[in-house]
Amino acid sequence: MISFTCDYNEGAHPLILERLVQTNLMQEPGYGDDSFTQSARRRIREATACPRADIFFLGGGTQTNATVIDGLLPHYGAVIAAETGHIAVHESGAVEFCGHKVITLPSHEGKIDAGELRAYLERFYADAAWPHMAHPDMVYLSFPSEYGTLYTRSELSAIRSVCADYQLKLFVDGARLGYGLASPAADLDLPAFAALCDVFYIGGTKVGALCGEAVVFPKGDAPEHFFTIIKQHGALFAKGRLPGLQFDTLFTDGLYLRIAAHAIEQAGRLRAVFERKGIPFYIDSPTNQQFPILTDTQMGKLEGKVAFEIWERLPDGRCVTRFATSWATPPEHIDALAALL
Amino acid sequence: MISFTCDYNEGAHPLILERLVQTNLMQEPGYGDDSFTQSARRRIREATACPRADIFFLGGGTQTNATVIDGLLPHYGAVIAAETGHIAVHESGAVEFCGHKVITLPSHEGKIDAGELRAYLERFYADAAWPHMAHPDMVYLSFPSEYGTLYTRSELSAIRSVCADYQLKLFVDGARLGYGLASPAADLDLPAFAALCDVFYIGGTKVGALCGEAVVFPKGDAPEHFFTIIKQHGALFAKGRLPGLQFDTLFTDGLYLRIAAHAIEQAGRLRAVFERKGIPFYIDSPTNQQFPILTDTQMGKLEGKVAFEIWERLPDGRCVTRFATSWATPPEHIDALAALL
Amino acid sequence: MISFTCDYNEGAHPLILERLVQTNLMQEPGYGDDSFTQSARRRIREATACPRADIFFLGGGTQTNATVIDGLLPHYGAVIAAETGHIAVHESGAVEFCGHKVITLPSHEGKIDAGELRAYLERFYADAAWPHMAHPDMVYLSFPSEYGTLYTRSELSAIRSVCADYQLKLFVDGARLGYGLASPAADLDLPAFAALCDVFYIGGTKVGALCGEAVVFPKGDAPEHFFTIIKQHGALFAKGRLPGLQFDTLFTDGLYLRIAAHAIEQAGRLRAVFERKGIPFYIDSPTNQQFPILTDTQMGKLEGKVAFEIWERLPDGRCVTRFATSWATPPEHIDALAALL
Amino acid sequence: MISFTCDYNEGAHPLILERLVQTNLMQEPGYGDDSFTQSARRRIREATACPRADIFFLGGGTQTNATVIDGLLPHYGAVIAAETGHIAVHESGAVEFCGHKVITLPSHEGKIDAGELRAYLERFYADAAWPHMAHPDMVYLSFPSEYGTLYTRSELSAIRSVCADYQLKLFVDGARLGYGLASPAADLDLPAFAALCDVFYIGGTKVGALCGEAVVFPKGDAPEHFFTIIKQHGALFAKGRLPGLQFDTLFTDGLYLRIAAHAIEQAGRLRAVFERKGIPFYIDSPTNQQFPILTDTQMGKLEGKVAFEIWERLPDGRCVTRFATSWATPPEHIDALAALL
Repeated sequence: MISFTCDYNEGAHPLILERLVQTNLMQEPGYGDDSFTQSARRRIREATACPRADIFFLGGGTQTNATVIDGLLPHYGAVIAAETGHIAVHESGAVEFCGHKVITLPSHEGKIDAGELRAYLERFYADAAWPHMAHPDMVYLSFPSEYGTLYTRSELSAIRSVCADYQLKLFVDGARLGYGLASPAADLDLPAFAALCDVFYIGGTKVGALCGEAVVFPKGDAPEHFFTIIKQHGALFAKGRLPGLQFDTLFTDGLYLRIAAHAIEQAGRLRAVFERKGIPFYIDSPTNQQFPILTDTQMGKLEGKVAFEIWERLPDGRCVTRFATSWATPPEHIDALAALL
Repeated sequence: MISFTCDYNEGAHPLILERLVQTNLMQEPGYGDDSFTQSARRRIREATACPRADIFFLGGGTQTNATVIDGLLPHYGAVIAAETGHIAVHESGAVEFCGHKVITLPSHEGKIDAGELRAYLERFYADAAWPHMAHPDMVYLSFPSEYGTLYTRSELSAIRSVCADYQLKLFVDGARLGYGLASPAADLDLPAFAALCDVFYIGGTKVGALCGEAVVFPKGDAPEHFFTIIKQHGALFAKGRLPGLQFDTLFTDGLYLRIAAHAIEQAGRLRAVFERKGIPFYIDSPTNQQFPILTDTQMGKLEGKVAFEIWERLPDGRCVTRFATSWATPPEHIDALAALL
Repeated sequence: MISFTCDYNEGAHPLILERLVQTNLMQEPGYGDDSFTQSARRRIREATACPRADIFFLGGGTQTNATVIDGLLPHYGAVIAAETGHIAVHESGAVEFCGHKVITLPSHEGKIDAGELRAYLERFYADAAWPHMAHPDMVYLSFPSEYGTLYTRSELSAIRSVCADYQLKLFVDGARLGYGLASPAADLDLPAFAALCDVFYIGGTKVGALCGEAVVFPKGDAPEHFFTIIKQHGALFAKGRLPGLQFDTLFTDGLYLRIAAHAIEQAGRLRAVFERKGIPFYIDSPTNQQFPILTDTQMGKLEGKVAFEIWERLPDGRCVTRFATSWATPPEHIDALAALL
Repeated sequence: MISFTCDYNEGAHPLILERLVQTNLMQEPGYGDDSFTQSARRRIREATACPRADIFFLGGGTQTNATVIDGLLPHYGAVIAAETGHIAVHESGAVEFCGHKVITLPSHEGKIDAGELRAYLERFYADAAWPHMAHPDMVYLSFPSEYGTLYTRSELSAIRSVCADYQLKLFVDGARLGYGLASPAADLDLPAFAALCDVFYIGGTKVGALCGEAVVFPKGDAPEHFFTIIKQHGALFAKGRLPGLQFDTLFTDGLYLRIAAHAIEQAGRLRAVFERKGIPFYIDSPTNQQFPILTDTQMGKLEGKVAFEIWERLPDGRCVTRFATSWATPPEHIDALAALL
């Protein structure tokens, strides 16, 4: 059985495991004071061209989103997201659990629109009752989005500009950041994110690590006592060496982008397989998630041999599906899929 | 200056003040153990035909909504409301502050639709990822709605039936309950609410009281330690006599419905004033809130003499406005308005 | 039956009810924009000698404590209180419900000691593990304390000084502030509190009002969007005129301190009654709460005629009791008590 | 430099890394549906003699404590712990962040006393004001305690009995459970914990894993939707295989207890080193944490060569220190220490 169900079906990039084995019995301090974490910070500061960036390593996406959002918002503050945003849909209400409303804007293939954002804020402040409403203080977006799509530099700059006008923080969820950056469709790189966002995270769990996300405050202005905030949210690694070593490895010799590029390449091949069969796509995704629309007959051919996710059944009976590639996808898996369809 | 801006522009019904004065120096225990509260409970049990109802008196609408919702939901639970529902819009995120997501459904003139509710729940459980989502455990609706509209008995029963099928609690926000019950358009009475809801509250602040809302658990199944929950939410009156005496008065000799009927009568006269001038309404409201659509010329005639709320400016330049009557509206105010328009 | 069980057994000072009746049908805006609230703010600014103070009116003590503490603390912040402090014991965990730890210090007849506070903070920061602990950001104290005792100006200044050294906010819970200020033992007045605290509240519920507490930020530096914070905590009065009018009345012609002085005078007479009988006190309280230690025989004499609170049974079988006077205590009640003992 | 500062200075037991490497590219479902997790559950059910136990794998101690405590408590509920308990001191207020008060009892070398627990609860319910207090619904204790000490079977049974009488859940924090079970002083084993507790966790992070704690509900009565609760707390591993494989390995062929026994053996040797030098201990700990009291001269001998934690400076100038051994402590480290002292 071959699986394209998600991009976290495998363990970690072999270089990471190799270094884990090599360094295993070195004694290192806990809680992020270890030498791996310090080195990882240096490398990420370099890769983002932010020598003063504050960098923290957390364990997973929901945890990171909740900790960062709660850490930056005033407690009456709300965060604006696409109605399809991960925090709005698939985090079991973790942001609300921390006390904050998620205000949703329409999703355009997973993305919010700067114009609609501005219109929302204009309407908000035009309403004399706004002090009775949850106060918008942050914009959350995902790059790539939950539908695999990418903001362009111009789109992100436009959102940044609205944020500046209305004093909103801009936070980018980069759970799959690598797969976005490695896409030929992307015109944004790490220094661009650092320049445009107040905070973003570089996803490890889905891009080569066993677990771990790197939160970057490019200007070095992490909230005071952010360490304590992380601990309070249950998000502090005792063995900080675990995420530290992984990110240190991923940011050595460009490994992170290189393995992400592999996933993008395989996604392109996967896409071509469907296109050759005349199978349409739900959304035109330039990253590692592809959303072919399959008939029951087509799905029948894959049954028991290729696993994928069913996203939604359409009124005409066909299914929107998701096939994800990753740093670990063997080219042979695509070949096998092509042979079956 | 005459004001129709809201239904809480005045103090309390004079009978309430009279009894406050008469009983002022009687010594009574605090926290709801006073004789007024006990009497008020008896009278509300009778009016709702629920001899075993648990009844608590809280201070205001947002507080009551947050306390009841948080008190009944498991902490991972979410509440479903119309996108125009008070908890979704005008409570500064108080429900989210308590840790719960507000899931919104489309608003049909302020109301949710039982069919859409069922469809939402079917879709929810059909999605294999539902354990990753905030879990719906309650339906919240307002009677009358924020747009003055009323659920019919058949509509409420249909919602009740969906709730039963999906194990959701049904909670009715009755901030203006009296104005709904007193409307000739209503086919629901207090015993009907008691029969159909798990919990509802009878609004006092907007219907004759200085402050206070009566929370009713018709089956006598208030959450364990609900007194402690109320206190924890900062919603416990030290002088429980204050809401107790007010509700005791409002539920003596049918005062509550009688004064609500006055507001409805004046709303009807107000409606007729606009209709005679050919002024259209944004929504057909059978209760104490009316939403005439006014031109700038018409608003100019009222300027400085009659206050009202501007709800929304339409693309054609006209304004959706809100005029609210209340138990206190003098008939002369309607006459004065008519003379000006 | 005469009751000394607490200082909220009666309604409101008659002048308040009189004005409620007089102004009842005046139309006033909601949410604190009414003329009474504005006037009350002016009078309290004058009484506290703080022309720029921000002033908000909330409903009750627990609500006020939770809203102010949560509003001022960073979300990782903790508040330090006496182990007998109201927030530490009798608020059903309302502060923790808002996410904040209450750190307790030893109680010295209800008061914390500046030296012990400093020692705690020195120890805290001397411990390298402090980033793993809840971070102390505020000191909470009650004036009078829960045991009726008073901080002296010198004691409060010493605490203020520790707060300044460690960047802690100083918050005074003045649920019974009037009874403290009116005590001959007090060497602090309203301007002194305004000068020494970051925020404090002037209690109304226990000192002549039906409900209501006035929160004062002497320097005019209330947290941004504090109105929204109040609403989010369910603590916003729709009819802001209710607390507004009450505080406006209480701060007209010195009513607040005058009626508090009455309670203190009666407490002195009550104290003398016990002293004449050779009955000892658990604590030497100069305010309206007195804590005589009674034998079963003595309590038997009062049974069914005089109500009071039992605080604690001592190992020798006697009971620490609490007798509270208030603005409403008739002198005859003391006479009646004296006759029974 | 040799370090005894804590028991998480190294990576993972080599067998874990070996299996991580071997299984790295096997495709497995996420979120705990992988085959490793299923196998780990089976093995832990066997080791605890609880065939119906519900078992969940979380990431670290603070996260696990907060999730379990919040998951089991009603939202008004409080948890009782020793004043030295980890949740009371060193978790940055994570339990309070979830809304719950931590009620503290005196610590007896890190342990609470069943008699004092009962006395506290008797006093609580004897106080008529208890509905105004945070409601105790759970007892938390650590085994071994934060001071390395162990509850005996008789002590734990006595606490269990109080819990039964007062309807409190009993939760044991087993961050170092292995080091407790492997101590010759222990008369409790895994089945005993399963029989006596409502829930406990088996610590991995400090006993051989890179990260991970196994939460066990022995009776199979985990709170409904506990998966969603875990996700909401940000505590769900996307790659559930990571903790799953580790616990599967640790519970294969008794590895967990075997490597814990190694730590205990080295702790015994370490203890003997200090005893031979006549160095006293702050507490008589039978587990992997030892608390020798050192003079500045003695500490000087170790400076730059052996790292350890300073716990507290005594009035006489000596320091209480902590030396921790672990599954990874090489016997030579003890020899080296002995040579230096």
